[in-house]
Amino acid sequence: MGHGGMACAQALRRAPVDVLVVDRHNYHTFQPLLYQVATAGLDVENITQPARHILRTQANADFRLATVTGVAPDGRALTTADGDAIPFDALVLAAGATTATFGVPGADEHAFPLKSATEALALRSHILERFEAASADPALVDAGALTVAVVGGGATGVETAGALSELFQCVLAKDFPHLDVSRARVVLVEGGPALMEAYDDDLRDYTRRALERRGVEVRLGAQAARVAPDGVALADGTWVAAHTVIWAAGVKAVPLAGALGLEQTRGGRLIVDDRLRVPGRENLYVVGDLAGATDADGRLYPQVAQVAIQQGRYVARAITRAVGRGGPPPEPFVYRDPGMMATIGRNAAILQLASGFKLRGWLAWLGWLLVHVVALVGFRNRTAVLWSWLYNYWTYDRGPRLILTARPPADDADAPEGAAPVAARTAGVAAE
Amino acid sequence: MGHGGMACAQALRRAPVDVLVVDRHNYHTFQPLLYQVATAGLDVENITQPARHILRTQANADFRLATVTGVAPDGRALTTADGDAIPFDALVLAAGATTATFGVPGADEHAFPLKSATEALALRSHILERFEAASADPALVDAGALTVAVVGGGATGVETAGALSELFQCVLAKDFPHLDVSRARVVLVEGGPALMEAYDDDLRDYTRRALERRGVEVRLGAQAARVAPDGVALADGTWVAAHTVIWAAGVKAVPLAGALGLEQTRGGRLIVDDRLRVPGRENLYVVGDLAGATDADGRLYPQVAQVAIQQGRYVARAITRAVGRGGPPPEPFVYRDPGMMATIGRNAAILQLASGFKLRGWLAWLGWLLVHVVALVGFRNRTAVLWSWLYNYWTYDRGPRLILTARPPADDADAPEGAAPVAARTAGVAAE
Repeated sequence: MGHGGMACAQALRRAPVDVLVVDRHNYHTFQPLLYQVATAGLDVENITQPARHILRTQANADFRLATVTGVAPDGRALTTADGDAIPFDALVLAAGATTATFGVPGADEHAFPLKSATEALALRSHILERFEAASADPALVDAGALTVAVVGGGATGVETAGALSELFQCVLAKDFPHLDVSRARVVLVEGGPALMEAYDDDLRDYTRRALERRGVEVRLGAQAARVAPDGVALADGTWVAAHTVIWAAGVKAVPLAGALGLEQTRGGRLIVDDRLRVPGRENLYVVGDLAGATDADGRLYPQVAQVAIQQGRYVARAITRAVGRGGPPPEPFVYRDPGMMATIGRNAAILQLASGFKLRGWLAWLGWLLVHVVALVGFRNRTAVLWSWLYNYWTYDRGPRLILTARPPADDADAPEGAAPVAARTAGVAAE
Repeated sequence: MGHGGMACAQALRRAPVDVLVVDRHNYHTFQPLLYQVATAGLDVENITQPARHILRTQANADFRLATVTGVAPDGRALTTADGDAIPFDALVLAAGATTATFGVPGADEHAFPLKSATEALALRSHILERFEAASADPALVDAGALTVAVVGGGATGVETAGALSELFQCVLAKDFPHLDVSRARVVLVEGGPALMEAYDDDLRDYTRRALERRGVEVRLGAQAARVAPDGVALADGTWVAAHTVIWAAGVKAVPLAGALGLEQTRGGRLIVDDRLRVPGRENLYVVGDLAGATDADGRLYPQVAQVAIQQGRYVARAITRAVGRGGPPPEPFVYRDPGMMATIGRNAAILQLASGFKLRGWLAWLGWLLVHVVALVGFRNRTAVLWSWLYNYWTYDRGPRLILTARPPADDADAPEGAAPVAARTAGVAAE
C-alpha cells in the first residue's frame, strides 16, 4: 500500500461506501526512507506499517492480500493471481511505479533497485557481504568490492550516495579495522548536467559540493551504458569497477498498467482526464505514480509521494460526491506543490518551497528530519525512527548491519509488480 | 555468533592472543527472544547485533564471515565452504545446536523451527499469511488456517504459545474485524506429564493454568507422530488440524559436529573432558550447546545460554593461562546455576533460583523483563526493546506484523548449520 492508495482509503472514512484495499504486500512502505534501510540507518520494520493496522479504526474499510492481475472484461471486478475475482463498483488504481532501466544491458540483472522493503534489505546485505569478502581477501578491493556506483542523480541517488559515504567513513571503517576502508568509493553517475535537476542552481551546486566534501565522486553528463556484476561501463568508455551498482535512474509504471489494455503515456502511466478518471470509464480512477495526470501546461506531475497523497484524497472526494454526499462533483484536480526537500547527510539538506523560499545546511536538515518523522505512519514508528536518528547522530553509529538475505526471496522477485488499488464499492450495492 | 562464542571472544580481550571469530552469519542472535520476533512483539533487528560491532573495541579480535565445514587433517586449520583454510593454534568450537525432529515423519518438511532470526521471520510471515488466506476464504478456518500447534512444552514452546494467544486475542482480532478470530487456536503438545519439566511442580501447574486462562489448549502426554502441511497427527490417533506447526521439541548438535570425526554423545554433542577439551586434542575446546560436558553426577548440562556463557569465559581463562598468563591451568569447569525464568504472557512468568527461591506472576514477569533487557547486547537494542515492551504493554498492540518472506531464503536453508567457533591464535605464533 503506497501513499496514494492509503490516502484515498483513509479519506473515504466517512463516505457511505465499503472500501477494500487490495495489495500484494500486507504493509505500507514509507518509500522516502528506504535508502536509510539500505544504508543501515533504520530498521525496516520502522518505516513500514501493517495495512490492517492503518485501517483498523476505519469501520468501512477492509484489506485483501492478493496480487492483482487485471480488470475483468465486464469492468466490474479485479482479477487476481490466485484466480479469485474481487467485484467493485468503483476502482482506484494506485499500484505505483517500479524501476526503469531503459534497456541498459545488464541493469535488470545486476543493478540493485531501491523501490521496496525487500530490495532495500537485499542491497544492505549485498554491500555488507562485499565488505566481508574484501576483509577475507583484500585483493578484492582493487576489483571494486568496496565501491558502490549509484546511477541517477535525483533525490534517491543523492540521498543514497550521501548516506553510503557516511556509513563507510563513520561505521564500517570502525567495523573493519584491518581493511583499508578509506579505499571504499561511492561514485554517483548522472546523465544530465547537474544533480537534483528539479531544484534551483544554487541548491544543485550545494548538493554537489556537500557530496564531494563527504568523499562522493560525482560524475555529471555520464551515461550508464552497461552493467555487470563487477561494475558499470559508461557511454564515454570509462569503466567503473564496482561490485555494487544501484539503479536510481528512473521509474516506470508497474506491469499491471500494460495488462489493463488502457491508453498509456510514455513511461507507461495510465492516461486520465482532469478528474483522474480513465477516459470513458466513469468508475475507474488512477492516482499516484501510475496516473498520467498533467498540470495546466500539459506536463506530467512528478512521481512523488505528495502528488499521490493529494490525488488519493481528491479521488476519495470525487467518489463521496458520486454516491450523493458532500456536494457537486469536484473541480478538476490541481496539484498544490508544497515544495521539495532532500537530505545529503549529517547537517546537510536542501529545501525549496513553491513560493521560492530556499534553505540549505543544518536547518534544512533539521526541517527534513521533523517533516519525515511527522509523515511516518504510526506512533510506534515515529518514536522508533526519532530515537534511531538521535542515536545515530550522537554516536556516529548505525543500527542494523545484518546480512539477512543476499537477494530478495524468489516469491517477491517473480511476482508481478506492486498493486495497491483501492476498490470502493458503494454501500448496499455490492453483493457480499 | 551465539552466547558461548561471544562470551569466549570477549573474555579473551586482554589475553596475548589474536582472536578470530568465524561465523556464517555476521550477527549475534539473542535466541531467548526469538519467539517475540515470531509473534510480532519485537523487531528482528533489535535482538540481533552485528558481530563486528560487538568486537569493535577489542583490539585483538577480528571477524570472518564463512561457513565452517571441518578441521583440516593436521588439526591446525579450519576448512570452509568457500575453500579457504583458516589456521589456528587453538580452536573453540561454539557452533551451537539446531532443531531435532527425531525422525517424526513430515516434521523436517512442514514444521517451523525457531532457532534463528530467519526462521523467526519465516514463522511470523507464515502465521500472518494464513490469517490473510482465511480472511479471503473463511472456509479455511475449519481446515485449521487459524490454528497453531506448538510441539514441545519446554521454555520455547510455552513462551511461544503464550505470546501467540495474546497476539491473536489482543492484536489480530482487531486487525481482522471480519474474521472470527475467536476461533483461532493455540494447541500446545507435550509428550511428558507436565510443562516446563525443569521447574518445580507448583510452577509447572501455574504455567499450565496461566496458559489455559489465555486460551491455550494444553495436551500433556501427547506425542507428535506425523506432521503435514495442514496439521499434526498425535500418537493416540488424534488429528490436530493446524496450518502452522511449530517444532520446539528438541535440539541436536549442528551437522558440523559429525563432520569433525570426533566422539559424540547421544544428541551429537562433542565429548569433552572436565576442562572442556576434546580428549587427546589439547588445542580443541568446545563450549555451549555443542559441548557434551557433564556435571559431577555425569549428567549433561542443559543447552541454555547461561551454560554457554560460563563455558565460554572458562575456556578464555584456560587459553589465557595456556599462553603463560594469569596463573596455573584452571580447575575443572563447574556450572554455577543462577536459576531459570520463563514468561507466559502479560504479568505472568515463573522464576526458580538454584537456592530454591521461587516466584510467579507479575513480579516474576517484571524480573524477566529487566533481566532480558540487561542481557541484550548493545545500548541501542536495550533501549529499543524496552521501548517496544512499554509500547506493547500500554497499548495492547504489537509491532512488526509484516509478511516479508514466507520461507527462509534458499541460501540459508541449504547451508550447513551454524558455526560460531572462536579461533584463538597465540600472538606471534600464527603465520598470517
